[in-house]
Amino acid sequence: MTDTVYDMVVLGAGSGGYAAALRGAQLGLSVALIEADKVGGTCLHRGCVPTKAILHAAETADAVREAGALGIRAHLEGIDMNTVNDYKDGVITRMYKGLQGLVSSRGIELVQGWGKLVAKDAVEVDGRVIRGRNIILASGSYSKTIGQQVDDKVLTSEGALQMDHVPASAVILGGGVIGVEFASAWASLGCQVTIIEGLPRLVPNEDEAISKMLERSFRKRKITFKTKTMFASVDRTEAGVRVHTEDGASYDAEVMLIAVGRGPATANLGYEEVGVAMDRGFVLADEYGRTNIEGVWAVGDIVPGVQLAHRGFAQGIVVAEKIAGLAPEPVDDVKVPKVTFCEPEIASVGLTEAKAKEIHGAENVTTAEFKVAGNAKSQILGTQGFVKLVSVKGGPIVGFHAIGARMGEQVGEGQLIVNWEADADDLAALVHAHPTQNETIGEAAMVLAGKALHNHG
Amino acid sequence: MTDTVYDMVVLGAGSGGYAAALRGAQLGLSVALIEADKVGGTCLHRGCVPTKAILHAAETADAVREAGALGIRAHLEGIDMNTVNDYKDGVITRMYKGLQGLVSSRGIELVQGWGKLVAKDAVEVDGRVIRGRNIILASGSYSKTIGQQVDDKVLTSEGALQMDHVPASAVILGGGVIGVEFASAWASLGCQVTIIEGLPRLVPNEDEAISKMLERSFRKRKITFKTKTMFASVDRTEAGVRVHTEDGASYDAEVMLIAVGRGPATANLGYEEVGVAMDRGFVLADEYGRTNIEGVWAVGDIVPGVQLAHRGFAQGIVVAEKIAGLAPEPVDDVKVPKVTFCEPEIASVGLTEAKAKEIHGAENVTTAEFKVAGNAKSQILGTQGFVKLVSVKGGPIVGFHAIGARMGEQVGEGQLIVNWEADADDLAALVHAHPTQNETIGEAAMVLAGKALHNHG
Repeated sequence: MTDTVYDMVVLGAGSGGYAAALRGAQLGLSVALIEADKVGGTCLHRGCVPTKAILHAAETADAVREAGALGIRAHLEGIDMNTVNDYKDGVITRMYKGLQGLVSSRGIELVQGWGKLVAKDAVEVDGRVIRGRNIILASGSYSKTIGQQVDDKVLTSEGALQMDHVPASAVILGGGVIGVEFASAWASLGCQVTIIEGLPRLVPNEDEAISKMLERSFRKRKITFKTKTMFASVDRTEAGVRVHTEDGASYDAEVMLIAVGRGPATANLGYEEVGVAMDRGFVLADEYGRTNIEGVWAVGDIVPGVQLAHRGFAQGIVVAEKIAGLAPEPVDDVKVPKVTFCEPEIASVGLTEAKAKEIHGAENVTTAEFKVAGNAKSQILGTQGFVKLVSVKGGPIVGFHAIGARMGEQVGEGQLIVNWEADADDLAALVHAHPTQNETIGEAAMVLAGKALHNHG
Repeated sequence: MTDTVYDMVVLGAGSGGYAAALRGAQLGLSVALIEADKVGGTCLHRGCVPTKAILHAAETADAVREAGALGIRAHLEGIDMNTVNDYKDGVITRMYKGLQGLVSSRGIELVQGWGKLVAKDAVEVDGRVIRGRNIILASGSYSKTIGQQVDDKVLTSEGALQMDHVPASAVILGGGVIGVEFASAWASLGCQVTIIEGLPRLVPNEDEAISKMLERSFRKRKITFKTKTMFASVDRTEAGVRVHTEDGASYDAEVMLIAVGRGPATANLGYEEVGVAMDRGFVLADEYGRTNIEGVWAVGDIVPGVQLAHRGFAQGIVVAEKIAGLAPEPVDDVKVPKVTFCEPEIASVGLTEAKAKEIHGAENVTTAEFKVAGNAKSQILGTQGFVKLVSVKGGPIVGFHAIGARMGEQVGEGQLIVNWEADADDLAALVHAHPTQNETIGEAAMVLAGKALHNHG
């Protein structure tokens, strides 16, 4: 057993690692998959999946509150956070079982334990050396804590997902994806939320129009946010925390959630010692996941770029295919779709208007918006928002941006449009089904093509 | 005024007619739009839009019922159908106002009254003759009644949408789109539903796998259905109706809903007299909407083919562009997306597996399915279903079929795939966002491409 040299040794069984392992095994490679915790990693156990379960519980609370206006007489009696957690854990458990089944059915050797890179072709786990012709580094990421002690008053997302009650009030540091998702969920569950964001707007990586719409929606929902506001310090108080900002203000709340981003989990794993080229904790890799050392690859959140599970998945597949001698298309971060599951949901892929103008020149970029107020299904859902297309004049659509209740799922058509470089006429000629939210994309395309059907003004 | 000859006279302001009018006006044509009732037609006032509002109220009732399992303590106290109707009418009113605003802002002359074709270039409305270089017939459709007297016990969809209470029980004749949508809504609102369908399966125009899944879901929801069962007669009883079927069985219920399809509204409109070629009440038109008479066009439900609002919209636009001298792409019914808004929702576009085999030969067709049980967001929503892709072997994907809660919105990506003739490799190479329901399409593509990631077995 100890003499085995695997085709692939994968260090970390999160989204990037397990995807590489599954695809590698499918292609006939021998694979060892090393994981100190559980297959599925942050995304399944402490990230994407549990937050979305809580967001769905939150959506359900809102649905109950708003049911009366639809003729459904109902009363919200309270939130039972232990049951919310049971529901959330049930989803995780089912997905986890499925994933374990896949890993074992494909003949992958799952090695439980803390792996450390000890040579360019070897990982050591609890004293056992596992050799591979290829090593894939997929050790993932952790929640940044900006030097704060984490406890039951000052939380990261991991802690926030384990709470046995809904906090009465919360200060959330960071108005990015994680911050606005927790803000949205907690607000729906009855928490008074204040977001502190250093940049001038919420979800600062999105198109500016999206930020404006989200801010308007959050204001209506009584979610407080302070942009251009820098965190200074936090004191523990009897009742919770007092958060001080650099402008001299302070905010009292039961808890503070630090949601300022995720750092690469690359410390004490032997990467530097073996000579893997790194930059500020990230592992440097080319578009095919190749590091500076031949046979050592890297995927997922440890590689600079967008930290998203599905980017990791896709990179894992590319690396496995590359190792197997296929010719996969590399993953282009710009073409990776993004969904933020706050209420209203945000979907985007490709370039923001600002970025498109920077790349193509302001005079060569045109945009079109269609407000969901003109869309029957969105009226039925009682939501506001829009679809915005960013296009090179006379050329392809290079950016897709959408916001509104349930609009996250529109990202599917959005990513096809951007990846297949559709132009306005291509898209406007197609029939979109009525009455769906999906029609908003067709309408936006018609606006872009100069043949707006349902657009006012 | 009576001497005006319009570029376009449109008879009927439903989806097909108003789309033609709006697009014509946009292209600089002078347009008269004739409507006996309200702009928006069946779809907005008596069809698509009100049914979807009621279906959303029904979905909300289910959300309240299921909230407890998610930790949201709530109690369903009852259904207030008058408030459901107010909500539904509110949606219609807002959309109607928007549409009226569009029509008037574009300088279209809206003529209120019952129009009748009196010559190949003239429509008479209340004694006034309106002349047009082009006449567009867009008189829409009506609910078939198969010879039954319609009243408050025997209803068509129009009557069903106006009820001031939820019937305790209902027999629904017809398991097509309208039948299963009402069955789904009423069941969620507390009605005991029995569907009588003559064909061997529910939604018989969908892929057979979709019908099977829907039937399984309806069984779980305690919606009774009798397929291969022919309606014989109905008696009025003290309590409602007794419905007799040809197999000798009978079903008691408070109401019977006739949902056996829609006929073309073409009687007494002068079409035959002027010499428009017709077949069993439908107006015959080519792919550009041209009838046998030059300058007389037809769009929407009066033209044989799929009776869907968005097909009518699209045809209206094509006719207006054709009249204006542009070169639009004709509408291909096979490429028109379809959504059925029952729970679970159904989305489809392109060919069913059976139809694809008929056209391309069984040996040249391959299919792939991905069950939503393997999809995190669907687990969160607690739904079952699948995405099925039908492909020509080594060629394009020619059919997209999906079923599951909220899966209707996936039709956007589905219609792009089919319309742009994507093949499995094109699609499998793209990154789908996690954790969305949209991922199921990416997974199905990977199955089709022989590189299933999350598929078991």
